[in-house]
Amino acid sequence: MIGRLNHVAIAVPDLGAAIAQYRDALGANVGDPQDEPDHGVTVVFIELPNTKIELLYPLGEGSPIAAFLEKNPSGGMHHVCYEVDDIIAARDRLKDSGARVLGDGEPKIGAHGKPVLFLHPKDFQGTLVELEQV
Amino acid sequence: MIGRLNHVAIAVPDLGAAIAQYRDALGANVGDPQDEPDHGVTVVFIELPNTKIELLYPLGEGSPIAAFLEKNPSGGMHHVCYEVDDIIAARDRLKDSGARVLGDGEPKIGAHGKPVLFLHPKDFQGTLVELEQV
Repeated sequence: MIGRLNHVAIAVPDLGAAIAQYRDALGANVGDPQDEPDHGVTVVFIELPNTKIELLYPLGEGSPIAAFLEKNPSGGMHHVCYEVDDIIAARDRLKDSGARVLGDGEPKIGAHGKPVLFLHPKDFQGTLVELEQV
Repeated sequence: MIGRLNHVAIAVPDLGAAIAQYRDALGANVGDPQDEPDHGVTVVFIELPNTKIELLYPLGEGSPIAAFLEKNPSGGMHHVCYEVDDIIAARDRLKDSGARVLGDGEPKIGAHGKPVLFLHPKDFQGTLVELEQV
């Protein structure tokens, strides 16, 4: 069912330092910061030949990653995102298997403009899993 | 400098449950467990179209992921691995930039039989970074 790894998201407490480390020390192709006020994050994409790293920095009040950074002040890996062809079929299969979908169970439009769902980390070995319909 | 994302490693407290979730609920292509006694882990590879997920489970005494699972009893994302063409050149560039290489700074032969290095998570926004020469 799942296809490509769309991205790995890393929450960072200092966006400038993170950009410098990936661009200068690791020599990666780092994009410009993009504010996503609807999602409460500023996002920077790092383009690798086969996938992306998504740096997440809190934007505005009530950012969904503020609590994560309180628990992990240095930052850390926040979620992985797998691509699916049909997010409703994927959701129904996951619910049948007993996995919990976060929120009201309906796909939302994610930061890339595509339908997404998040799955409960306790059902996936402590890893927050995003599914994105591509 | 860095190339492909070779894998995302996820430490798991229950390998059977993790295999079932990825194979049955997420419908992924899950390999057989491989014991790596030299590295203190049992590894399961999940092959995605563009990269791999590596499930890590402790093997034997003094496993390098035992402490991680004590801190994260549900499991969690353990490290990301980026490919490089020349691990010595990569190490020297990183050291020049001020990043810390773990251990004695010399590449070791990793679980895939290739030279690897690990970089200090504090220098990479709380994320443990492995470099693998391919």
